[in-house]
Formats: sequence, C-alpha cells, structure tokens
Amino acid sequence: MSAPGKPPRLFNRVLAIGVGLIGGSICLGAKQRGLVGHVLGYSRRLETTHEALRLGLIDECVVSPGDSTVRQVDAVVLSIPVRQYKQVLTQFLPVLPANCVIFDAGSTKADVVDMIAELEPQFPGLIARFVPAHPIAGGETHGPAAALPDLFVGKNCVLTPLAGTSAVNLDRVAAFWKALGATVNQMQALDHDEMFGTVSHLPHLLAFAYVASVLDHPKGGRFMQEGGAGYRDFSRIAASSPEMWADIFQNNSKALLAALGQFEHTISRLRQAIEQDDRKTLEQVLATAADYRSAWKPR
Amino acid sequence: MSAPGKPPRLFNRVLAIGVGLIGGSICLGAKQRGLVGHVLGYSRRLETTHEALRLGLIDECVVSPGDSTVRQVDAVVLSIPVRQYKQVLTQFLPVLPANCVIFDAGSTKADVVDMIAELEPQFPGLIARFVPAHPIAGGETHGPAAALPDLFVGKNCVLTPLAGTSAVNLDRVAAFWKALGATVNQMQALDHDEMFGTVSHLPHLLAFAYVASVLDHPKGGRFMQEGGAGYRDFSRIAASSPEMWADIFQNNSKALLAALGQFEHTISRLRQAIEQDDRKTLEQVLATAADYRSAWKPR
Repeated sequence: MSAPGKPPRLFNRVLAIGVGLIGGSICLGAKQRGLVGHVLGYSRRLETTHEALRLGLIDECVVSPGDSTVRQVDAVVLSIPVRQYKQVLTQFLPVLPANCVIFDAGSTKADVVDMIAELEPQFPGLIARFVPAHPIAGGETHGPAAALPDLFVGKNCVLTPLAGTSAVNLDRVAAFWKALGATVNQMQALDHDEMFGTVSHLPHLLAFAYVASVLDHPKGGRFMQEGGAGYRDFSRIAASSPEMWADIFQNNSKALLAALGQFEHTISRLRQAIEQDDRKTLEQVLATAADYRSAWKPR
Repeated sequence: MSAPGKPPRLFNRVLAIGVGLIGGSICLGAKQRGLVGHVLGYSRRLETTHEALRLGLIDECVVSPGDSTVRQVDAVVLSIPVRQYKQVLTQFLPVLPANCVIFDAGSTKADVVDMIAELEPQFPGLIARFVPAHPIAGGETHGPAAALPDLFVGKNCVLTPLAGTSAVNLDRVAAFWKALGATVNQMQALDHDEMFGTVSHLPHLLAFAYVASVLDHPKGGRFMQEGGAGYRDFSRIAASSPEMWADIFQNNSKALLAALGQFEHTISRLRQAIEQDDRKTLEQVLATAADYRSAWKPR
C-alpha cells in the first residue's frame, strides 16, 4: 500500500505520442506526482521531442515507431491532432504490447470512436484497450515549453468509452486523470460533441471569424490596438492554434454547424431589432443572455 | 502652487449626474486624489443617490434639478445612458451657471455631438462648454457599490470635441481624466464610433447573441455549465447591462451594423470552407486571426 495521501504509481512505462502543451503537461504532471515510472516521448518533429526531453517532460526520446523501446510500455497517451491518430496508430499498434491501455486527449470524440471501430478488424482488441478522453484544458499557448504540471487541476475530463471498452482500462484511465487533479465524468461521444460544439468549438469559430473580419477593414488593425478588456477577453481564443482548430472544426462539423445555425438565427433577430428600432425585442434578447451569464459560475 | 506630485484641485463643486459604476468611480477617484472640492450627486432613483452618499462617493444628494445647490457648480459629469442626456440636460441647463464645463462618459459619440448641436440654439454656448468623452473602462458590474477609485488608471479616455468646443474647457477635462490616471487622446466623433463599433460594440453584440442562442437549445443551459476558460472569457461581456447596451447598439447602429456585415461575410466563408472540406481557406482565415491576436498587446 502506498503512504496515505501519496497517489500510487499507475503506469510503469508510458509512451507519450505528442509532447506539446497537452501531452507535455500530462507527462510533467504524472512524473511530479509519481504516477508513472519511465516516460517515452514521440512527436512528428524530432526537435520537439528533444525539447521535451531537455525540459524534463519525458525521460527518453522515441525516434521512430520501430524503436524496440516501445515494446514494453503499459500505457500510451495520444496528444496530437485527431486527424493524425489513424496514421500514427497504424504505425505503432503492430509494435505495442497487446495489453497496454491507450487513451487520448482530443477535443472531438465521435470521430475518434468511429476511427477505433474502423481499426478494430485490423487490430483486434483495440476497442477494449482504447479509452477516449477529453480534458477541458489548454489555451492559446502551445509547444513543450508551455507545459504545466498542474494544467488539469480543477478541470473537467470527459471520458466517452465505447460499449466494448474494458471496465478495467476505463477505471485505470479515470484514476490517472483524477490523480492529475481533474474531475472525471462520462458521456456518449455524440453528446460530448454536441455539448463542446456549442460551448467550445463555436466560441472559437466566432472569435477567429471576428478578428479575421476586422482585419478585412483597412483600419482594422489600428482599431484593435484600442481594444479594452472586453475585446481582450472576447478575442483571446482567436490566438489558438489554426491547425488544431481547423481539425476540430472539420472533425465536429455537424454539431458545430448546427450550433452556428442557431447563432446566425439569433444574430438575424438582433440585426432586425436594431434596424427596426424594436427596443423591446433587443432588450429582451440581451436580458436573456445577461441573466444567464451573470449567474454562471465555472464548475 | 500645489506640492510636487500632488495634483491640483481642478473643480471646486462638481455635479455628478449618474452615480453608478462609471459616475461613482469618477467621483471616488476624484475625491481621493483631491481633484475636486464638494461633490453633488443626482440620479433618476433617489435610492441610488442615497447609496452613493452612504458609500462616500458623493458629499450631497441632489433631489431634483430645481435644487438651488446646483447653481454654484463649476463642472457637470454625465454618466447616464446617452438616450437620457437630452431630457436631463433640458432640465438642468436653465439652472446651471453659464460658465460651468460639462462632460460625459458615454460609449457613443456622434449621437452626443448631434444632440449638443441640436440643443445649442435653445442654450447658447452649450457647444463651447461641452466636452464629449469616453473612458474605455467599465465592465459587467454596475451600480454605486461597484465603483472603484482606480477604475480609470492605465485606461484610455477618448475626447471627441466639436469644432466649437472651447480650448480651455477641453484642456480642463483632459487634465481631469489624466489626473484620474487615464491616457487621453482625441479623435472625430464619427471615427470614434466606427472604431468602437468594431472593437467594443460588435464583440458585445456577438457575446449576447451567442449566449442567447445557446439558451434556445433545450439543453443549452446544461451545456454552458461545462464551459471552460475559453467559454468563460468569450462570454464574459454577455453579462453586461442590457439597458446600457441596447442604448449603445441603437445609438451606434450604423457603424455597428457595418462591422456586423463584415463579420457575417467572414462567417459565411468559414461555414462554406467547413461544409466543402476546403482546408486551405479554413486554415488561412484562422491563421490570419491567430497571427494578429497572438502578437496583440493591450495598450
């Protein structure tokens, strides 16, 4: 038994595929808490893997999926763009031990669930071993240097297991996220995507669109220099990674575009109310939003 | 001469019309810095004026525009919704001394400039005495209890004088805002409205519309409970005062709707790019926004 208060070691040998803000923070947080033994790191660019090693996020660099060092891992965590999962898994799965648990940290989940089901015939047992996860953390910084050991403390982490996910693996991954400080909850992948399409992906799309549209104005850059605290907070997420968010928008297009349609409907109502001096509708829509948002508290 | 470092008294007897977050902060900041002597306060609701007195924001309550106590003021500051200026000025101007300077703190300026020009024939000299001002400060809190003496420290304050504004009055008002800690700059009222229609009013409209549109979904409230830091910051300004922002949207409708039109155009491009799997356009628009916003710094 471990000493009281000290979390036990959960994995002996972990392979982190992707060692940027999210992957790096998972590794660093797990190492500092003693949740893991030896941490191997892999990323598309060797330079990034070396940076993660230098920063102490990982213990060893994996240069290629063929490296014999990956044959003994008991857990794999994917923190790369979801669009790259299939290719990377296809390279690593033939080498990985059959009993290692695999989980991810991607922002969309129905596409991940579909991809796992699609790979199952080629890699029997994959569904049982794979625990789709989405920690609600991150931000507009990226790369290994942005990693923080406490990034997930007090944050939510949503698990969207498949019907065939093994309960043991689900429990191991849930215990890992809890030990990193997150609150873990479970839902269906489609429910997850609808929820986060609405409360995360749509705000990102709107913030990107807003900043890009202002830059279309000849004086737009000059205008934004005068932005105050409202501008600052509203547009903050427009500084997020274009590559990662283009992935998310494409991977969750159905739920995102449905939420966008609702938004466009409300914007039309407000435009019309302003054009027609319809004070009653205008104030009523604003009050609906303000009443909700004034009472809102982060979980 | 005043002691080095100590700002001189700029006004002996000030009348604050409106004693909420903005008016209250002006009074408190000016009193704490010794910029003003006696501060009179007036608001639509006597209860609010009494609260401001109790909180020490003002020294005396004005119950009605007819109170003889307002006959000796040398400065008037309007911190009420712009739509109420005309009625309130029409009540107070017959009583106020002819040489007192008047300034405001409203978020729109072309409408204020027009209103002053319109009242000039009835109150000759009004243009010379009135200095339109917009401190870029505030937020989603309101009322006298939200007042802060340092609300304007490090913030911008834009003055939009008319051609006929007296240089002496302009200098006095500029000195006052500087003494409150603000950086003062000048521009034309129409330029101001275009700029703030784009960097302040449009983000507010989009944030209100976003929260209202999510609430139209049966599970919208439940979804927003799961919002993370991105949601929190993006939607923060949707908690702002519906009455004040309905005013601003109506008073600056032309510039606001023009900026909204540009935004809708960009959103259409992004929607199409997502629908047609046009990764190149999608990533390009996101990168344009991210490049600008990553490099942006508050002034």
